[in-house]
Amino acid sequence: MGTFNIVVLPGDGIGPEVAAAGVSALKVIGEVYGHTFNFDEKRIGGIAIDTDNNPYPEDTDKACRAADAVILGAVGGPKWDLGKQRPEQGLLAVRKAMGLFANLRPMDVKASQVHRSPLKREVVEGADMLIVRELTGGLYFGKQTRTETTATDECVYTVAEVERVARVAFEAARKRRNKVTSVDKANVIETSRLWRETVIRLHKEEYSDVELEHALVDSMAMHLVTRPTSFDVVVTENMFGDILSDLASVLPGSIGLLGSASLGATGQGLYEPIHGSAPDIAGKDLANPIGTLKSVAMLLRFSLNLLTEADALDAAIDAVVEKGVLTRDLGGTASGSQVSAAINAQIRESA
Amino acid sequence: MGTFNIVVLPGDGIGPEVAAAGVSALKVIGEVYGHTFNFDEKRIGGIAIDTDNNPYPEDTDKACRAADAVILGAVGGPKWDLGKQRPEQGLLAVRKAMGLFANLRPMDVKASQVHRSPLKREVVEGADMLIVRELTGGLYFGKQTRTETTATDECVYTVAEVERVARVAFEAARKRRNKVTSVDKANVIETSRLWRETVIRLHKEEYSDVELEHALVDSMAMHLVTRPTSFDVVVTENMFGDILSDLASVLPGSIGLLGSASLGATGQGLYEPIHGSAPDIAGKDLANPIGTLKSVAMLLRFSLNLLTEADALDAAIDAVVEKGVLTRDLGGTASGSQVSAAINAQIRESA
Ligand SMILES: CC(C)[C@H](C(=O)O)[C@@H](O)C(=O)O
Ligand SMILES: CC(C)[C@H](C(=O)O)[C@@H](O)C(=O)O
Repeated sequence: MGTFNIVVLPGDGIGPEVAAAGVSALKVIGEVYGHTFNFDEKRIGGIAIDTDNNPYPEDTDKACRAADAVILGAVGGPKWDLGKQRPEQGLLAVRKAMGLFANLRPMDVKASQVHRSPLKREVVEGADMLIVRELTGGLYFGKQTRTETTATDECVYTVAEVERVARVAFEAARKRRNKVTSVDKANVIETSRLWRETVIRLHKEEYSDVELEHALVDSMAMHLVTRPTSFDVVVTENMFGDILSDLASVLPGSIGLLGSASLGATGQGLYEPIHGSAPDIAGKDLANPIGTLKSVAMLLRFSLNLLTEADALDAAIDAVVEKGVLTRDLGGTASGSQVSAAINAQIRESA
Repeated sequence: MGTFNIVVLPGDGIGPEVAAAGVSALKVIGEVYGHTFNFDEKRIGGIAIDTDNNPYPEDTDKACRAADAVILGAVGGPKWDLGKQRPEQGLLAVRKAMGLFANLRPMDVKASQVHRSPLKREVVEGADMLIVRELTGGLYFGKQTRTETTATDECVYTVAEVERVARVAFEAARKRRNKVTSVDKANVIETSRLWRETVIRLHKEEYSDVELEHALVDSMAMHLVTRPTSFDVVVTENMFGDILSDLASVLPGSIGLLGSASLGATGQGLYEPIHGSAPDIAGKDLANPIGTLKSVAMLLRFSLNLLTEADALDAAIDAVVEKGVLTRDLGGTASGSQVSAAINAQIRESA
């Protein structure tokens, strides 16, 4: 019987539709399991540029820092592509402000969707991995300089930054199949050498029960496509993680089913689907809410420690997918709100 | 009737075997078409660490700078993995010394090999792209610093560096399907903003006849897997190119068929297969020589301007592959030297 403060950042494009599905699932879970969720809706991204001339307004910042957890829809759209302020700056700002250093991107292949994968069934079937991406360091937040003829980005990592995200990966592996693949480019860059040394030391000191392997980022891009089933937990730095987690996300053939969690040191987290703002289908009730609902399941699990509720939501999602209540992106004809309603009904039914 | 000075860097593992196949093809082409090739064999990589305590010895450097073109086998192996000096340093050093700023990685899907692709036939069939990777800038050659707790890599690009490699991409596109996809992370890093601005300006000023599109590196990793047939020429910076070119190379299902060219401003170039040193099969005459021979065809074309000879070699390779004279990696039973001999015979026959 808890009371939880959830900040909702609908954002742009289909963001409001999918965020609404997340809120409605939490309301049902609140009713069924006896929790109180207080929702506070705030602006971020393009819409915040329009209203506040700032992709991450101050009251949004204040609310996010104070929240138990944040649900984000999506940010961005062609409307703001040429502006001086960009919606993505809101996303980077909230990550930094909340100290969300670990981005968790689970991906698994659903038997009923494997025919949609670009990979051959025999290559991809059974793939089930968690990519842990460092989210507040590296090239993303290094010093940038620019003259008329030259641009510079600085990539910095400290031992402490590597250690805390590697710890998240090792802990996650212990609850999964006990294997971590650490990805770097230690044969070329200095930050990767520090990365590898730190992971090796931490493994030796505290996680020697977990199987650890190292892969170079270029090889890893190949392995993800040729043998995705070899991996359990994959951990890497910010830019490599950006690339590899998006690469991994298309392998199951159903990007609309994938969610993400971005976690800080205090249990606070931000939860968002991995798809973008899809302006072309916004406002038409076509968007698949499941990526957001998978994210909300992680919110229940990681930020609120409501494990039964998290499992119930995951199970409800799976049941509705198996029943074939699917949006267009998965070959179905259901609207987004029909899928959302079906999942809510399933939660009540199974409780 | 030319005379050409070719430096051969066999390197490690299967490097000597595949480099030998390249040399023998050039000898046949010399006989058939009346050219003289002078070969000068030099050390690089692990073997050079063993003999000279330097992965890129001075006499190798002198010879490479003076050559018309360089053939490289492969570098690296577990023997040198833990040493202070690393074989790859030889590779980075020769790129820098020869000013090889443009790495060309063509990939196409052979009908007879498409069943080996990890991708579904309908996704990958017909894919035919050229990745142009900037090779002497970015994180690879930036300042690196290290303290006990912190590591830093600097990523630097100048307008001139971007322009010259973009020019290579636009010129190549004009000889292909007239489309360039420029890949960056302009929504986050400064070097990518300079990259994009420079590509846009050059396109407007000199190449507006070529179709130009921009993609973010994370999206591009997805597109390469979901719609590889959409791309013609892809151009990007060093680290992104390292990742994306390796990713693209596994799509055709036959990494042993792919070569690469690394070009400088003067027509000089270094040519190497894209596979590694494969120490596990070294010395057994199992290595597929075709990646090297495809590279030698580019050597004839780009560094020596021998277009007829380049086409003849490419055609001989295709003919032998179609005949099914294949090494184990392609499901055949031929030895590397049998494949090499078959291609040489085909060159003589078709002349
Ligand atoms: C929008 C962009 C800044 C962001 C990133 O690169 O981190 C996105 O690609 C992501 O992965 O969440
Ligand atoms: C061996 C390594 C330094 C090299 C690179 O990263 O450039 C290799 O991966 C390549 O692509 O040629």
